[in-house]
Amino acid sequence: MWRELAPIGRHCGSGGYRRFAWTGADAECRAWFERQAVARGLAYEVDRNGNQWAWLGDPARGDAVVAGSHLDSVPDGGAFDGPLGVVSAFAALDELRGRGARFDRPFGIVNFGDEEGARFGLACVGSRLAAGQLTVAAAHALTDADGVTLPQAMAAAGHDPDAIGADRERLDRIGAFVELHVEQGRALDLSGDPVGVASAIWPHGRWRFDFRGEANHAGTTRLVDRRDPMLSYAETVLAARREARLAGAVATFGKIAVEPNGVNAVPSLVRGWLDSRAEDQATLDTVVDGIEKAAREYADAHGVDLDVVRESFTPVVEFDDALRDELARVLGRDTGLKVPVLGTGAGHDAGILSAALPTAMLFVRNPTGVSHSPAESATEDDCVAGVRALADVLEGLARK
Amino acid sequence: MWRELAPIGRHCGSGGYRRFAWTGADAECRAWFERQAVARGLAYEVDRNGNQWAWLGDPARGDAVVAGSHLDSVPDGGAFDGPLGVVSAFAALDELRGRGARFDRPFGIVNFGDEEGARFGLACVGSRLAAGQLTVAAAHALTDADGVTLPQAMAAAGHDPDAIGADRERLDRIGAFVELHVEQGRALDLSGDPVGVASAIWPHGRWRFDFRGEANHAGTTRLVDRRDPMLSYAETVLAARREARLAGAVATFGKIAVEPNGVNAVPSLVRGWLDSRAEDQATLDTVVDGIEKAAREYADAHGVDLDVVRESFTPVVEFDDALRDELARVLGRDTGLKVPVLGTGAGHDAGILSAALPTAMLFVRNPTGVSHSPAESATEDDCVAGVRALADVLEGLARK
Repeated sequence: MWRELAPIGRHCGSGGYRRFAWTGADAECRAWFERQAVARGLAYEVDRNGNQWAWLGDPARGDAVVAGSHLDSVPDGGAFDGPLGVVSAFAALDELRGRGARFDRPFGIVNFGDEEGARFGLACVGSRLAAGQLTVAAAHALTDADGVTLPQAMAAAGHDPDAIGADRERLDRIGAFVELHVEQGRALDLSGDPVGVASAIWPHGRWRFDFRGEANHAGTTRLVDRRDPMLSYAETVLAARREARLAGAVATFGKIAVEPNGVNAVPSLVRGWLDSRAEDQATLDTVVDGIEKAAREYADAHGVDLDVVRESFTPVVEFDDALRDELARVLGRDTGLKVPVLGTGAGHDAGILSAALPTAMLFVRNPTGVSHSPAESATEDDCVAGVRALADVLEGLARK
Repeated sequence: MWRELAPIGRHCGSGGYRRFAWTGADAECRAWFERQAVARGLAYEVDRNGNQWAWLGDPARGDAVVAGSHLDSVPDGGAFDGPLGVVSAFAALDELRGRGARFDRPFGIVNFGDEEGARFGLACVGSRLAAGQLTVAAAHALTDADGVTLPQAMAAAGHDPDAIGADRERLDRIGAFVELHVEQGRALDLSGDPVGVASAIWPHGRWRFDFRGEANHAGTTRLVDRRDPMLSYAETVLAARREARLAGAVATFGKIAVEPNGVNAVPSLVRGWLDSRAEDQATLDTVVDGIEKAAREYADAHGVDLDVVRESFTPVVEFDDALRDELARVLGRDTGLKVPVLGTGAGHDAGILSAALPTAMLFVRNPTGVSHSPAESATEDDCVAGVRALADVLEGLARK
């Protein structure tokens, strides 16, 4: 399965993946999913929001067990973030069939559309739409960097954009959703465990900082006559690091847009995006308020105007207690060891769905700890351990 | 003339001009130049390097007097930078004909191609090629942001890219070149003079700073595990301002490129361009060395690799002493006042040509001091004063 999926959307220069929602690379990944479903005799369907499903047993019976993740990527992302969860779900089904496992409940595998939000700027669009956490009007207003709207992109890929929207009936049929994911940090590497169980997803958000100054000639304008927004941006980048460090949180300026972005021009606009996450809401508020306050002082000092817009926000997600404990119990049974339960700063479809149904997550060790980069990694042994863990968990759930 | 030229290449959103070399907007400006030449009965020609000329009298006689500037613009540039010098040259000719002035020497008006370097990253391509300061091989290797090479762009605009190269024979026919330009600072506004004469162009250069770290997930990577190049970039931006202020120079980071430039990704690469200029070479060296030294310390502290590449450099240009004094004398004659003589941090075609022939520059007051922006300005009265000054100067030169 890996071999067939590996070359799709891979960029020759960076070695990273560029699988953006509703592009050609995305279509190839989706065709791969359909082939995997059909080859296993599963019932294949695409829901109104563009999420792909493969069913063993009739989901209309309800209380289904579902595993899966997503196949799209961030710009120049790694091979595992997303695909490992989908590939593992198919592999776990093969393993369970090999064991002759009983399926008392309908079993499904899912590929959620547009999880990374790399193209339209909003993450988890497929699961958000299904869960009713994103309105149709807001989704229709999403636009990519080339000015293509989400409806236009969907239509170009052969999907009806007018059919999207909340799909509670479909989600209500699911009794448990388990998402396996490569770890996006080094907790398992540091603890020496191949697999862990998620406790919670940190609250996180994205804020856009627009610093507006005055475009001017870089050679002839005296420093005292300048209103240079790059200076207040630079000071704010450093303030973000300081505030996050003091609070034990994370804060990152990783995306920037500058106008006119000319070598010999003082910028008129520097737009920087802040991503910040913390263990709890109060800490996150402290960090972001501190950064914004510092940014306003820097902007004032340079005669620069500042607008701060919160572009997205996801509150803390606590995964289903009972399901989490069940996973830890099943996984600890064979080894007799305590399975690590860890929080994560990353958003996931499982986090979105946790408001609607019992969800859980498994993490597979990532020796580099690197994520959203070609350097993201997982050993073959650990991937096999992940598939076995997922199969154990699903076997227990499917029989219940 | 203004009315016809004003709408070409103007962007509706920014109100700024986007007249980039060998684009449609550039072609419209060039067609305008040809119409102005033909309407005045001047001999129109385009040289091998794409510069446009309009001649009164046969330039082959030698010792010609030439006025002009350029019609292209920076991204979202103002209306005056460049065009004011070309329009004023035509207007000055009209004025001189009205006065019944004698033309003992051939008289030419020129529009140099690709002065701003907005598309291919190198300024003054037309005059550099003619003066032999840019090799044909180097010019053929120039590429725009979309991967279009200069020869491809020239050919698409109907110009033979294989004909470019040093054109000393043409330049040797010119005895004096005078470029009128809107001032790109506030010296004339502060001194209360409508027109000034240039003394020298400060030495200046462009340096590319490549900060390479490690792409990573902005939500899950601990701060201590990061090698975030945005932090060293931000510290370097502030160091540049500090070094420039201490030395009485200017230093600007106005252009940036980030990879992968995702909201939720620690960048792998932050590429920033430094533009720096100072009154003399030693001061400029001190400033740039200071910035680079600071940048290396910051990069080391964050585990980030740094490469610094000097992309272009122009040494100090002292304009022709005799021509400058002649201009100041002619302009002071009527008013009895001393005409301000000022240095400038901006590069110009006149600076390039000064190595090959006697050149001089006139500046027209810019009340905002703003340049390379739609806020660049000059009053109608001052433009008229500029045309009259240029006509006075040219009348004196043409009769000599």
